[in-house]
Amino acid sequence: MSDPIAELVALLGRLPGVGERTATRLAFHVLGETPDYAHALGESLRSIHERVQRCEECGNYGAEARCTICSDARRDASIVCVVARVPDLVAIERAGSFRGRYHVLHGLLAPLDGVGPDALPLDALVRRARADGVREVIVATPLSVEGEATALYVAQVLRPLGVRVSRIASGVPHGGELEFTDQITLGRAFDGRRDL
Amino acid sequence: MSDPIAELVALLGRLPGVGERTATRLAFHVLGETPDYAHALGESLRSIHERVQRCEECGNYGAEARCTICSDARRDASIVCVVARVPDLVAIERAGSFRGRYHVLHGLLAPLDGVGPDALPLDALVRRARADGVREVIVATPLSVEGEATALYVAQVLRPLGVRVSRIASGVPHGGELEFTDQITLGRAFDGRRDL
Repeated sequence: MSDPIAELVALLGRLPGVGERTATRLAFHVLGETPDYAHALGESLRSIHERVQRCEECGNYGAEARCTICSDARRDASIVCVVARVPDLVAIERAGSFRGRYHVLHGLLAPLDGVGPDALPLDALVRRARADGVREVIVATPLSVEGEATALYVAQVLRPLGVRVSRIASGVPHGGELEFTDQITLGRAFDGRRDL
Repeated sequence: MSDPIAELVALLGRLPGVGERTATRLAFHVLGETPDYAHALGESLRSIHERVQRCEECGNYGAEARCTICSDARRDASIVCVVARVPDLVAIERAGSFRGRYHVLHGLLAPLDGVGPDALPLDALVRRARADGVREVIVATPLSVEGEATALYVAQVLRPLGVRVSRIASGVPHGGELEFTDQITLGRAFDGRRDL
């Protein structure tokens, strides 16, 4: 494409939640800022794949071969939380209460899309559960059909190792109105009730 | 900053309408796409200031010294539309009815912020109005306090040249409900009424 602004708008428009109008606004904003900003943002984006790698232990993103969480001796290595994607890990870290380590699947079982167990790093999870003195694996995949299927499969794979496998709770979210909660969530909230 | 993802999130977070949460989502999206996309978008951003210049005639952005509108012989050079910013020009082009040329001020008079007439390319506008056989200058600055003040100033500067200076209409927008229209707009709609 010979028009540099149209080219930039088209590339920005491939970002999630960015339509043509927003992409145009962003492009003009960058042109209105100093060239320094365009250089810094462009260079950061251009090289991000090269500067970020998957942790050889857990699959989390990081600048080194081992991520900051796997390198942190204060994190409890006996509890491993399985997540589908790195943003889920970031959300759990933001919540701040989990002090164990992670295992990032970078996907979920989706037989209809041709994603079988071999496409997920489950061998590595079994190896970790065996070697590291892991007591418990908490499966924090999404509460969707694919997330649930993946959770069941992970449990099945780990059960022979004698490790405890748990699933995060499903129920009415914080601040949720029962009146507007869907039937499946309400059913799960009752099934998962706890004694007061 | 040593964490490449945090650095990218911080840079993306300086874009308009992009908070930390959105910036994080965008960064992970780019990491989830192929490196090719990150390379293309990054390179496009990095070099955008170098590949785009202001038209020597009107100030519009373009890949050449003269923008595509000033180079287009089919555009009516006798009518010049004055706009504050290039996105305003793009919006007018999208509307599709204006067939003249433009003059982009890249700003508005803002005495309180120290932006006086000398900061705007008004000399160039006077030169164009004198040389090109311009019949009419339509001032399409925003209908804000600064836009109105700039419009009055442009009119004052051009009046001695004997050129017609007009202002875009202000009134109730298309589809607008009178019930929910502010007082200033309603007042302008009455002042600017036309015979049926």
